[in-house]
Amino acid sequence: MTLLEVPNYSKLEKYFAQINNLSNLLSIISWDYTAFMPPLAAPSRQVEIGELSSIIHKMSNSPEIEELIAKAELESTKLDEWQLANIREIKRNFAQAISVSEELHQKYTNASNECEFIWRNARANNDYKGLKPYFKEVINLTREVAASKADYFKTSKYDALINIYQPGSNCKSIRAVYDTLKTELPGLLQKITEKQSKEKILPLNEHVSVAQQKAIGKKIMEIMGFDFGMGRLDESTHPFCGGTSSDVRMTTRYDESNFITGLMGVIHETGHGLYEMNLPAKYKNQPVGKARGMAFHESQSLIMEMQATISHEFIEFLSRLLKSEFGFRGKEYEPENLFKVVTVVKPGFIRVDADEVTYPLHVILRFEMEEALINGEIEIDDLPEIWNNKMESYLGIRPANYAQGCLQDIHWPSGSFGYFPSYTDGAIIASQLMAKANSSSRNIKESLRAGSFKELNEFLNKNLRNYGSLKTSGDLLLAATGNSEIQPEIFLNYLREKYL
Amino acid sequence: MTLLEVPNYSKLEKYFAQINNLSNLLSIISWDYTAFMPPLAAPSRQVEIGELSSIIHKMSNSPEIEELIAKAELESTKLDEWQLANIREIKRNFAQAISVSEELHQKYTNASNECEFIWRNARANNDYKGLKPYFKEVINLTREVAASKADYFKTSKYDALINIYQPGSNCKSIRAVYDTLKTELPGLLQKITEKQSKEKILPLNEHVSVAQQKAIGKKIMEIMGFDFGMGRLDESTHPFCGGTSSDVRMTTRYDESNFITGLMGVIHETGHGLYEMNLPAKYKNQPVGKARGMAFHESQSLIMEMQATISHEFIEFLSRLLKSEFGFRGKEYEPENLFKVVTVVKPGFIRVDADEVTYPLHVILRFEMEEALINGEIEIDDLPEIWNNKMESYLGIRPANYAQGCLQDIHWPSGSFGYFPSYTDGAIIASQLMAKANSSSRNIKESLRAGSFKELNEFLNKNLRNYGSLKTSGDLLLAATGNSEIQPEIFLNYLREKYL
Repeated sequence: MTLLEVPNYSKLEKYFAQINNLSNLLSIISWDYTAFMPPLAAPSRQVEIGELSSIIHKMSNSPEIEELIAKAELESTKLDEWQLANIREIKRNFAQAISVSEELHQKYTNASNECEFIWRNARANNDYKGLKPYFKEVINLTREVAASKADYFKTSKYDALINIYQPGSNCKSIRAVYDTLKTELPGLLQKITEKQSKEKILPLNEHVSVAQQKAIGKKIMEIMGFDFGMGRLDESTHPFCGGTSSDVRMTTRYDESNFITGLMGVIHETGHGLYEMNLPAKYKNQPVGKARGMAFHESQSLIMEMQATISHEFIEFLSRLLKSEFGFRGKEYEPENLFKVVTVVKPGFIRVDADEVTYPLHVILRFEMEEALINGEIEIDDLPEIWNNKMESYLGIRPANYAQGCLQDIHWPSGSFGYFPSYTDGAIIASQLMAKANSSSRNIKESLRAGSFKELNEFLNKNLRNYGSLKTSGDLLLAATGNSEIQPEIFLNYLREKYL
Repeated sequence: MTLLEVPNYSKLEKYFAQINNLSNLLSIISWDYTAFMPPLAAPSRQVEIGELSSIIHKMSNSPEIEELIAKAELESTKLDEWQLANIREIKRNFAQAISVSEELHQKYTNASNECEFIWRNARANNDYKGLKPYFKEVINLTREVAASKADYFKTSKYDALINIYQPGSNCKSIRAVYDTLKTELPGLLQKITEKQSKEKILPLNEHVSVAQQKAIGKKIMEIMGFDFGMGRLDESTHPFCGGTSSDVRMTTRYDESNFITGLMGVIHETGHGLYEMNLPAKYKNQPVGKARGMAFHESQSLIMEMQATISHEFIEFLSRLLKSEFGFRGKEYEPENLFKVVTVVKPGFIRVDADEVTYPLHVILRFEMEEALINGEIEIDDLPEIWNNKMESYLGIRPANYAQGCLQDIHWPSGSFGYFPSYTDGAIIASQLMAKANSSSRNIKESLRAGSFKELNEFLNKNLRNYGSLKTSGDLLLAATGNSEIQPEIFLNYLREKYL
């Protein structure tokens, strides 16, 4: 069916292409803001960004959309599955937009921006007290947002927040998964740390110049299939993957005394970038052409980082590459030692530095706390103590200050409650995807040993990335892994096999 | 008068602040497009840029503006000189916008964009014939635009185009200036080349790494007063100065076998950047806070490049700096030789490579041709021959191909007729400004010898840059130089003193 034959649907598509065009510009501007903008331009750029954001917001909330949708739906018999799914996604986006009043949205956005800004210094100065007035406002407004969304969507308040980031997910199913993890992980963790305590690791002490690290990073990105014709790698203090699906802007940070951590960061972000680059080309400017939520996005970074790269097979290749192309000579770069270096498991305070075995426990702690917080069962003054108690209970260590505890993450101060579960769902989905890929006819492991991501990329493109948001979350998981549920046992088996 | 007491004027200001916010984002995005964007993102970025441009265009042409202006003018007794000048500039901008129909504007813009794109390859391949169909369309539409504007503004067609870039200027006064230059320059040129033919110059053959050139460039920019808190220097194939007045984005190109030309380019662009940075802070988001046309803009780059830097005084400092901070050792870096290297005068085919003595002749040629072209006195097929004849007549050399002749500039293929006079007016204004600065109590020359631009910047900030568009072109020239006219004799005297 050509677009001419479905004039109303076409109008709807055109309208969302317009929103998408402006949103893409905002993404590039935001990347610039973080990675390139000279510091004194910040005040004017904030006003400029506000102007464009406000236009996008108005367009996304316009009552016109409802009418366009209704008319487009009258043409549904003439629409193909992508177009029908696009309407579904447009309706979902629109519902998210109008489920909160304009006034509340604005108050929540302003308070979050302000609090996030305050938080940057507060964390650096371990100043929970200084953050509290701003943080309290964010919590209160988030509760209001959650209540408004819960009312609109007929869900629980916390489910309403989770759904912003992970459509189709809910508290109950997440808790079931976490129950399994909470039962199994502590014992597994103990076994792994016991095993590792007996092993000898040669540290990577070599000073590696920024130029050398850039060369290594870009080489690995190319090997992974990152197309530098539609993406860049630059530097920023806080690494991220931004830009658009046709213009992926990755950033990283270089520490000359610790190149391997930086490299793993680049590999992780490349996974995000590959998802974006391989979304369905024809629908990249439509809601149906976007990534299927944050859990799937995280699965794409983690399958690249944890499953594919931090594997005996790829480490063998990496060791060879570092020696042959980049002149690394020491014994510490032998595959066996290199693998040990990147698979050290050790409970720590900071989530972003955590290994993949302890990481889920960091997430579970946050999940439990934010649910209670949103439901009004705990208050801002309770957070530090509850946090520390849970850390002690799950990981056996107790933070000595706020910065090691409840002040460490940007999410809550910036109003992002309900996001954390995506990380662990992503890790589990990654393990399910890799299990499926390995059980397919493709010989993923051997190709990784040879330094080829072609087979893995083909699998992921065909079974996940190319779908965009055509399928719902459950259907996509089913199509990609053969099972529509998040399966913690596959993840646990993967950890057992890798670490024991 | 606070803005509260002039509610209608305030609305007008707010409206133009909104336009300015979006235009600033477009500037940053355009900088990114040219300097950073990965190549395959071009098609989507073009669509995205088109979306935002269209919003800005609609806002700038909205009939609402006329009403806002009328209401604001009722408050004029309560407005200060900046606010009144702002209304004047808003009216000027609006008149420019509505002096061409929406349909013609769109056709002209599309044809220009297409032709500019074709031109890039056409120039590389010396393919005038391939360009012609596109170029013809641009010429025809430019004629229509000129006729429409001439009708609206009651001026000649070519004057209407000149006024886009240089408000207050016109053909007649430009021709009078050019008559003087055409009388004096050929003889002066001959004397200079004769004198220079007897001089011995040691060439700068040293290979200078990109890293070293970056360091030198940034050092000189800092010395010149460029604030890296509100600007950047990056690389691009075609160097330019873009961004916003709070966030100046300069680019340059590095040739490791010819660092001095690149450095002079950086100095030139820094002059543009300093103008932008030092526009009136309070009005940077309003039309009255913008630079006063392209001739003044060019004067700011040329006073820095030609007057301040390529002077015996500053070259003395530069020579010392290159030796002491950057390890240059050879005799060729002695001040006298260095000065000779950067002041070689030699007729050449390419305008952008021309020295300041021959440059005006390149401009005069174009001025005469574009006037005749716009008036329909010559046609596209006549251009190459007329161009070559004029080159022979003015500079004594005849292009061997189109790329050396009428195919060299981006201006005409991109629809920018009427721009060229700004270059030479800028050069003359620069000489008038420097003459005035030298005659003031400030000891500009001695401060340049000591490597300080403080005194020159103070003079330019106070007498020109800080005014933005508060004054009309003539009044600004009067305030800054003591004379409201462009004075070619001052420029000629400056050349005589410097080169003979």
